[in-house]
Amino acid sequence: MVPLIEYEEASAEVRAVYDDIRRSRNTVFINNFWKALANDPPSLRRTWESLKAVMAPGALDPLTKELVYLAVSATNGCTYCIASHAAAAKAKGMTPAMFGELLAVVGMANETNRLANGYRVPVDEKFEKLF
Amino acid sequence: MVPLIEYEEASAEVRAVYDDIRRSRNTVFINNFWKALANDPPSLRRTWESLKAVMAPGALDPLTKELVYLAVSATNGCTYCIASHAAAAKAKGMTPAMFGELLAVVGMANETNRLANGYRVPVDEKFEKLF
Amino acid sequence: MVPLIEYEEASAEVRAVYDDIRRSRNTVFINNFWKALANDPPSLRRTWESLKAVMAPGALDPLTKELVYLAVSATNGCTYCIASHAAAAKAKGMTPAMFGELLAVVGMANETNRLANGYRVPVDEKFEKLF
Amino acid sequence: MVPLIEYEEASAEVRAVYDDIRRSRNTVFINNFWKALANDPPSLRRTWESLKAVMAPGALDPLTKELVYLAVSATNGCTYCIASHAAAAKAKGMTPAMFGELLAVVGMANETNRLANGYRVPVDEKFEKLF
Amino acid sequence: MVPLIEYEEASAEVRAVYDDIRRSRNTVFINNFWKALANDPPSLRRTWESLKAVMAPGALDPLTKELVYLAVSATNGCTYCIASHAAAAKAKGMTPAMFGELLAVVGMANETNRLANGYRVPVDEKFEKLF
Amino acid sequence: MVPLIEYEEASAEVRAVYDDIRRSRNTVFINNFWKALANDPPSLRRTWESLKAVMAPGALDPLTKELVYLAVSATNGCTYCIASHAAAAKAKGMTPAMFGELLAVVGMANETNRLANGYRVPVDEKFEKLF
Repeated sequence: MVPLIEYEEASAEVRAVYDDIRRSRNTVFINNFWKALANDPPSLRRTWESLKAVMAPGALDPLTKELVYLAVSATNGCTYCIASHAAAAKAKGMTPAMFGELLAVVGMANETNRLANGYRVPVDEKFEKLF
Repeated sequence: MVPLIEYEEASAEVRAVYDDIRRSRNTVFINNFWKALANDPPSLRRTWESLKAVMAPGALDPLTKELVYLAVSATNGCTYCIASHAAAAKAKGMTPAMFGELLAVVGMANETNRLANGYRVPVDEKFEKLF
Repeated sequence: MVPLIEYEEASAEVRAVYDDIRRSRNTVFINNFWKALANDPPSLRRTWESLKAVMAPGALDPLTKELVYLAVSATNGCTYCIASHAAAAKAKGMTPAMFGELLAVVGMANETNRLANGYRVPVDEKFEKLF
Repeated sequence: MVPLIEYEEASAEVRAVYDDIRRSRNTVFINNFWKALANDPPSLRRTWESLKAVMAPGALDPLTKELVYLAVSATNGCTYCIASHAAAAKAKGMTPAMFGELLAVVGMANETNRLANGYRVPVDEKFEKLF
Repeated sequence: MVPLIEYEEASAEVRAVYDDIRRSRNTVFINNFWKALANDPPSLRRTWESLKAVMAPGALDPLTKELVYLAVSATNGCTYCIASHAAAAKAKGMTPAMFGELLAVVGMANETNRLANGYRVPVDEKFEKLF
Repeated sequence: MVPLIEYEEASAEVRAVYDDIRRSRNTVFINNFWKALANDPPSLRRTWESLKAVMAPGALDPLTKELVYLAVSATNGCTYCIASHAAAAKAKGMTPAMFGELLAVVGMANETNRLANGYRVPVDEKFEKLF
């Protein structure tokens, strides 16, 4: 594990990112992910800027984006990411019933992904062109 | 690859599932996934019944469920599943802009999942209790 | 893709491995995996020696080992490995019914793996000590 | 993490599933996986019914099915699933020697899966048709 | 599949990224990955800017970075990524011997990752603190 | 979890491997991975022999090999492997800046792998032939 960089001991470059995280999220809380990433300041800045852009409202609403994030994290078995994005999804309106249904879909998708792989199912002509 | 079982050559047990797929989806089209699974009739029935239950409207709307399915499939690299669930999502209202944003979130989640794993970030106390 | 090294054009070092594959499997057929690996002769030799040792009869019978190999390959979505190990399993006695059941277990395991991850289920005290 | 639902505090719907688990397994012990899933009763019921059907004796014997389950769980790195299915496999006859050999095959399959992917090995004509 | 956006039909926003790719790589060739991403111009720009920053020389030399990229792609089984990053690595000096050794390490890491998972090996005290 | 086999209680067969590990690494320290694998002596010997061969200096230098190992382990989310190979990489010269850049590349590769999968990008003609 690497040291977690607290605000007080952070360089000016890191503090600028922490300040933007606090401002954007309207809280003083900085979660451990950023404190770990702060060991590599260019990664910290780049990842935060990307995350802020990708998770902003757009064609998909913020809750849908968090649910997708959580689905990927459950699939990859990333303990930290499941915990932090479940909390974020809850803050954006995810109820226990939505969480249960989400994981049911995630489980089902992982099951059928392996069935499709195992049977080596050829893609239907009809599905070839998306847009 | 296994043979794809067409309706005409299918057993009564398999036809009953195909009939239900057609009725539920309001189309005669049966996609290859089911024709491959029909090589194992109990799996065909169980998987279809599960899928129908899991993907039905509930706390999450059907489009959100398809987007989650697609997110998992893109993460797992299941070519068939990406193609079929992208088509299903499009049929339920996914626009090109939504698809682009979805994949952007999926990519981002896969990126940060590995950063969290690589830095071995400890779960914040605050995230431990979800509901 | 890399060139597939045929027996006729292979170095003596590669031919020695090909000869051992043919002898061990009692066939002249060398499948593409080995012809690709032959681009790196030390990997070819080491991988073949390991595979021969690991897949030999022991506490588990050869068919069970092939089914496990196939289960992992379906999980990883390795098209080549699914095709070659399904053929190997069939040669060792896998019937269509066994193949269907195998994939059903693989699908189920992938589903519940994500549910366990997503709910962050703690390991039961009882399961902590295996042997 | 979500609360683990104990029998005493469970709804009638959840208790009915717990009762069936106890009857089918001939033990009062309910492991944490089901107590977590009980937060979403429809998932609990559906997953238990599927698991019971898939893991029942059939063309493959119950121990082989547990070994396959364990192989998938080790591949996915699902800690909970490795612990619970290793215990289940042991209860059905898995010896330390069998466990060692199983993991050796799992490791080998994961190694060669990446070699096949990395070299982009084309599927041999001979392997194209399975049954 | 989505349409591949060619330079001639691209919007000014997309052309600006294509121009920067051409300038940075000193070639007129734009590979399909970017032509697909161009369906979502903000993702195209953000991904290209990130990639350019991450792959620039720094504490690690450019060839080492490409080898790492290739290792991840072989692990994930991403066919496109294996093909494009193997080509990029070759252009930066990867020889056939280096490619063979790289895949041998990737295979070995995937093997031992599953052995460590399967045996649930506890992290040695000595490895807990990295820097 | 399985018992960790200490040197003092190990069989002659296991001790021979432990002795070789100590000699090769010039330290008396045996890390937990080997102590767990010692439950299956043939796997212990085979895995150690393979690892020693694969990680030896060759066309790639030892540090590059450790970085690749670490990249795969971060991708797979193998906690033990991340911890042990990060320590090994540090011992071979990895600085905090190199570690940060490595994870940035790993994260980026995992992101673009999913974008390439999700968009189903066809391999460019130019990338088809590697060597």
